[in-house]
Amino acid sequence: MATLRIALAQVNTTVGDLAGNAEVIVEWTRRAAARQAQIVLFPEMSLTGYPVEDLALRASFVEASIATLRESAERLQAEGLGQVAVVAGYLDRRTDLVPRTGLPAGAPLDAAAVLHGGRVVITSAKHHLPNYGVFDEARYFVPGNTLPVFRMPVSGGESIDVAVAICEDLWQDGGPVAVTRRAGASLLVVPNASPYERGKDDVRLELCARRARQAGAALAYCNLIGGQDELVFDGDSILVSATGELLARGPQFEEALIVADLELPNAGEVSPETSVGPVDAEDGTVITIQRVTLPDISGRSGVGGGGAGGGGAGGGGAVAGAGAGVVMETAAGEEEHGPFWPRLDDIAEVYAALVLGVRDYVRKNGFRSVVLGLSGGIDSALTATIAADAIGPENVHVILMPSHWSSDHSVTDAEDLVQRQGLHAVTVPIQAITDAFRSELGDDFPAVGLPAENLQSRVRGVINMAVSNNGGHLVLTTGNKSELACGYSTLYGDSAGGYGPIKDVLKTLVWELSRWRNDHAERTGATVPIPPNSITKPPSAELAPGQLDTDSLPPYEVLDALLDDYVEKDMGSAELIAVGHDPELVARVIRLVDLAEYKRRQYPPGPKISIKNFGRDRRLPITNRWRETFTG
Amino acid sequence: MATLRIALAQVNTTVGDLAGNAEVIVEWTRRAAARQAQIVLFPEMSLTGYPVEDLALRASFVEASIATLRESAERLQAEGLGQVAVVAGYLDRRTDLVPRTGLPAGAPLDAAAVLHGGRVVITSAKHHLPNYGVFDEARYFVPGNTLPVFRMPVSGGESIDVAVAICEDLWQDGGPVAVTRRAGASLLVVPNASPYERGKDDVRLELCARRARQAGAALAYCNLIGGQDELVFDGDSILVSATGELLARGPQFEEALIVADLELPNAGEVSPETSVGPVDAEDGTVITIQRVTLPDISGRSGVGGGGAGGGGAGGGGAVAGAGAGVVMETAAGEEEHGPFWPRLDDIAEVYAALVLGVRDYVRKNGFRSVVLGLSGGIDSALTATIAADAIGPENVHVILMPSHWSSDHSVTDAEDLVQRQGLHAVTVPIQAITDAFRSELGDDFPAVGLPAENLQSRVRGVINMAVSNNGGHLVLTTGNKSELACGYSTLYGDSAGGYGPIKDVLKTLVWELSRWRNDHAERTGATVPIPPNSITKPPSAELAPGQLDTDSLPPYEVLDALLDDYVEKDMGSAELIAVGHDPELVARVIRLVDLAEYKRRQYPPGPKISIKNFGRDRRLPITNRWRETFTG
Repeated sequence: MATLRIALAQVNTTVGDLAGNAEVIVEWTRRAAARQAQIVLFPEMSLTGYPVEDLALRASFVEASIATLRESAERLQAEGLGQVAVVAGYLDRRTDLVPRTGLPAGAPLDAAAVLHGGRVVITSAKHHLPNYGVFDEARYFVPGNTLPVFRMPVSGGESIDVAVAICEDLWQDGGPVAVTRRAGASLLVVPNASPYERGKDDVRLELCARRARQAGAALAYCNLIGGQDELVFDGDSILVSATGELLARGPQFEEALIVADLELPNAGEVSPETSVGPVDAEDGTVITIQRVTLPDISGRSGVGGGGAGGGGAGGGGAVAGAGAGVVMETAAGEEEHGPFWPRLDDIAEVYAALVLGVRDYVRKNGFRSVVLGLSGGIDSALTATIAADAIGPENVHVILMPSHWSSDHSVTDAEDLVQRQGLHAVTVPIQAITDAFRSELGDDFPAVGLPAENLQSRVRGVINMAVSNNGGHLVLTTGNKSELACGYSTLYGDSAGGYGPIKDVLKTLVWELSRWRNDHAERTGATVPIPPNSITKPPSAELAPGQLDTDSLPPYEVLDALLDDYVEKDMGSAELIAVGHDPELVARVIRLVDLAEYKRRQYPPGPKISIKNFGRDRRLPITNRWRETFTG
Repeated sequence: MATLRIALAQVNTTVGDLAGNAEVIVEWTRRAAARQAQIVLFPEMSLTGYPVEDLALRASFVEASIATLRESAERLQAEGLGQVAVVAGYLDRRTDLVPRTGLPAGAPLDAAAVLHGGRVVITSAKHHLPNYGVFDEARYFVPGNTLPVFRMPVSGGESIDVAVAICEDLWQDGGPVAVTRRAGASLLVVPNASPYERGKDDVRLELCARRARQAGAALAYCNLIGGQDELVFDGDSILVSATGELLARGPQFEEALIVADLELPNAGEVSPETSVGPVDAEDGTVITIQRVTLPDISGRSGVGGGGAGGGGAGGGGAVAGAGAGVVMETAAGEEEHGPFWPRLDDIAEVYAALVLGVRDYVRKNGFRSVVLGLSGGIDSALTATIAADAIGPENVHVILMPSHWSSDHSVTDAEDLVQRQGLHAVTVPIQAITDAFRSELGDDFPAVGLPAENLQSRVRGVINMAVSNNGGHLVLTTGNKSELACGYSTLYGDSAGGYGPIKDVLKTLVWELSRWRNDHAERTGATVPIPPNSITKPPSAELAPGQLDTDSLPPYEVLDALLDDYVEKDMGSAELIAVGHDPELVARVIRLVDLAEYKRRQYPPGPKISIKNFGRDRRLPITNRWRETFTG
């Protein structure tokens, strides 16, 4: 057995920011080197950010990625970091394919490289390309067909064989995992960009353990963190032994370095079934094993010094010192001495995803502040609270826009929230403006009914945008997923804005998150941020006298359960009735949801926390006469 | 040689409307039977409409498609049409695949079936799945791996072998075309759903000829017509001989039946290389040939009677009677006796695509009328004209919304257009409304500048939506592609609406189309629809005193040429400069285009006429720091 000190750097990259991402790689390699790591693993496509979408098809971008990779290797060497083996993701291309219909332009690769001694030592590319849910990789990439195995010299003349696979290569059967076993590698390192979904972390852990056993190798899974449009990457990097035992697990939703000493079989102890060359990948394809040996340029005789400290027992891929050898640090310098970063519970996890989604969308798009309409209701209260947690209350501007139909509590509850959190607030009454519209639209335009209700909502939308344009704030929309599903919103009204923090949050979860956030504040002795009355009062759009959501929609507990089955589980009418939903309600809700497709298309993006957030993960035609209520 | 009378039915289907589409199939089979056709070919997925997007992943929809296909076969028989071999597209599924990660849920197939004698005689599925441009078929389908060859009895105890391939199977090398030759079929029939793009018709003709030669069979290419969200299918069905000679070509952008007598090698005259079973498909896969013989239930001794009349010369797959045997009819009963329907010229073709796109989007989404803001400028003038041509001037409502900054000619030109075309017009001045907003927004809000300009545009957007909500009209946006590319529009202002007829039309083409439409009217002695002054005056948004587009943008001839290279051809900065664009302008325009990504995402769909219409065919992240001007 030999000891390898590995670092997993779960960092926050930005799509297209090659220079900035290269800087991130150098910075975190420096941190890893300071802790004497011999190898540092970065997420999938860390150099380009992920997902790059159609940028993969632009020749100039691919060339820039390849050039930046080479320059990064040189820079690491120049900065005295050349002795660390850096595994980073980037965008590459195959040069041996003739362009033809059906082949992505330029034959791009979702690639990974090992940088060492100032050079790009070996490269490979993702073999399994996901093309479901939010993924479109058959559009962007051609599959990789090699398994790189690099031999790392470690202490005492020993060495370890390390293989590289990428993200989806773990999720699908066969491919690089199968070939890793044939190649006899001791460690499989896997750069990932796996977006957050509620409960997905449990699936990932089980997956890593299973694939490690299949590969017969310890497995290091390093996941991206950060928001990118609708996607939120949660980090939560994982280290498991060859027997599938969890050795270390990083924080969720923050940048961190996870450093561990692994006891792994010496390369000399392993007799690979196949040394180099083509191997049946057990998925109907052939993968070629490519080997390279890194020169020993560490200048050290072995692992030692501060940080992860090692020694002791352990089987194939155990953490030296039974877990004591793991140290983690965040960007802010927070440290955890132990293998498992404290985990968030289910609701805290969702809340963290929403906060990170907002923070990164604001920051990465060049905004510093946000503005939103505050109604006194729970949706805008929670949205404001998430925003304040994301970018600080001093950067959150709210607008109170009362009308004739606004209740007293709508204003007092909104003012209460402003005071609790210290937000910037202005009041812009809408009555005189809607009156001006009515006067010009003439007598044909009705004083009550849907057109009149929409008009109020749109006047508020225009006010939000006017304040946004004038002050440079990003407008946040406050609609929740239940409303969005049923089309209970106004185009260019409450749906106007740049980002929708709770667009993937069902109304029942809005309440749950609000209660959790208040409880959390109470537990930590902080000010309770959300007025309790906003949580407990019956929801209303307040666009007509005495209006309640339940006038138009079923109770949210009933509605949300049905939406979950129809949207998330994609059940048809018969199946929905079979699992116990009221047939009349099924017909009504299917109709509402299907007819609202256009509205949802126009809705701003927002952080995805479910299987289907009405974004890239659910793609239905607008023009569409398939509503099961009409046919059976 | 034997004679086969074939009909190509290029029909207009609607996504999800199984019952309506089944009705279309029965109706056009009846027309084909009335002309004594022995086989009638429908477009790709004619029963479900195309593209169905995520409906393919819904089990209930797949089951309904399969059931409707079976019922359609029975109904055709019941209506006395069972003797016609009907080749129609539908949605099916493979039942022999175990669900796994990466496999589309339910293993759907983009399928085709032969209906005859009341039964579904044989089925197959698309082998090559396009996953580029507007296509995402790797997400929705698993590939087919069979080539069906059905033997049709014709006159005098003879018979003809017919193979079936689907759309993309023609575009990619190898696969069903290669196997058709091995199977020795005399005719390859190909259901298609190939969206219109300017100039694509020339590519298709060359493709059909080439594939016919490769297959060694006559080739019948039947394409969908109609609008479906952003896509417009143009029909333009093609019949070529085994030597690639064009035998018949249908109309563009309208439903039609193309009936032709083909002289084809008798099945007895051909010795296939491979009769049944697996064959190397020359694309790295294996395809199995499946054969079936249709019983002779025609009750006729041979081809005869009205319609396509036959006899005479011709080699393998020539039209009997050297072209005289082709008859076409449209839905309206218009007839063409001859093999080639008169073709539209380049600009007429684009105009027809825009008109059909608008007509079908309005109709298929349940609207009868549209509303748009009329400024007196050329964009709204052309949009109104397209709408009037699509659904009749009596269904087009326009709103004149003058402000302080509106020039005199903006009102007079708009009124001129209203009179020329007989549209419904109302005037809603915006000054009092913007004053009301300013009054409530307070002194912080500036009287001039971008926020003030956007406010005017948004007030107009709210008025459009108010009139739409009140009258049930669909709002048409009037933005052109040059504006959309550069972000020269206002979110929720001029971009508010349900459909954007000219969103894929560059400004220079807006002028060209307008001139063409006026010339066309003059040629046919009709009223010239567009006020000449709207075409000739310099373009202005009129949101500030004396404002001209050229204050913010380069001249449109220069801009459009650059946009074409950057957007359509996906050239990078260096390449753009190398082909002669001004370096400073390249930097500026790349920046403008990239920053406008969010605005474009919020823009309504519109008929696609180019390679990249800023829709499903161009997918870039909003959060994106790749702007080449910053890096090289």
